[in-house]
Amino acid sequence: MSEFLLDERLRADSLPVCELDLCRVLLMNDNRWPWAILVPRIVNAEEIHLLDTNAQIRLLGETTRIADVMAAVTGCEKINIGALGNIVRQLHVHVIARNCGDENWPGPVWGYGTRRPYPSDKGKLLLNKIKRQLA
Amino acid sequence: MSEFLLDERLRADSLPVCELDLCRVLLMNDNRWPWAILVPRIVNAEEIHLLDTNAQIRLLGETTRIADVMAAVTGCEKINIGALGNIVRQLHVHVIARNCGDENWPGPVWGYGTRRPYPSDKGKLLLNKIKRQLA
Repeated sequence: MSEFLLDERLRADSLPVCELDLCRVLLMNDNRWPWAILVPRIVNAEEIHLLDTNAQIRLLGETTRIADVMAAVTGCEKINIGALGNIVRQLHVHVIARNCGDENWPGPVWGYGTRRPYPSDKGKLLLNKIKRQLA
Repeated sequence: MSEFLLDERLRADSLPVCELDLCRVLLMNDNRWPWAILVPRIVNAEEIHLLDTNAQIRLLGETTRIADVMAAVTGCEKINIGALGNIVRQLHVHVIARNCGDENWPGPVWGYGTRRPYPSDKGKLLLNKIKRQLA
């Protein structure tokens, strides 16, 4: 039996937030947008529509919870949710807090420019806000 | 009481596919990618995470059904699912069939270049395949 291993690129580009019942939650280490990622700990999962219904509903519940948290913590204008996986095939769901005038608005965040890591204080501050809101 | 009205931009850019229990289903009239859109007939809905749980689960079920259909009809390599709404605020979920080497691969479809309508026979053929697979 294989065990769940987080994709190396997701790990390298993010800061760990928490473990929910189904998903590992990450914060993209990108100062351009508050951007969370949920990774279900299901070995070899790549597509939402191929999960069983129970896993789909649990993933939906946790995605909603993280979207609520990101909206509350940032006061953003719009939440963007996406599951693409064209590059990293391990199933992961993006939850991004968007605002009019942010980088590439109203276009998508994926594939736009180059990731800009948080200054360490700012990343820690946002992580702490997210963790408090989740608690 | 307001009634559901499809956003004018979604209508103008798409071909109608069918009505499911919750959603109107559209095919983007864009020859670059097989691209379906689900629009829940819920007045003023803008964010998945703000729907009640029942509506979320129904939307998930119909999104899964359309993703299965798009995968079966196209034999695509990857399904991309997204709910952005930065431009059109009416809640809508994108389900796109992607393949290595298609336009802007592995980047996202949103905001890329200019929509290229189907030659009418090709659009009709894809619509018919989708409808048969749904039946």
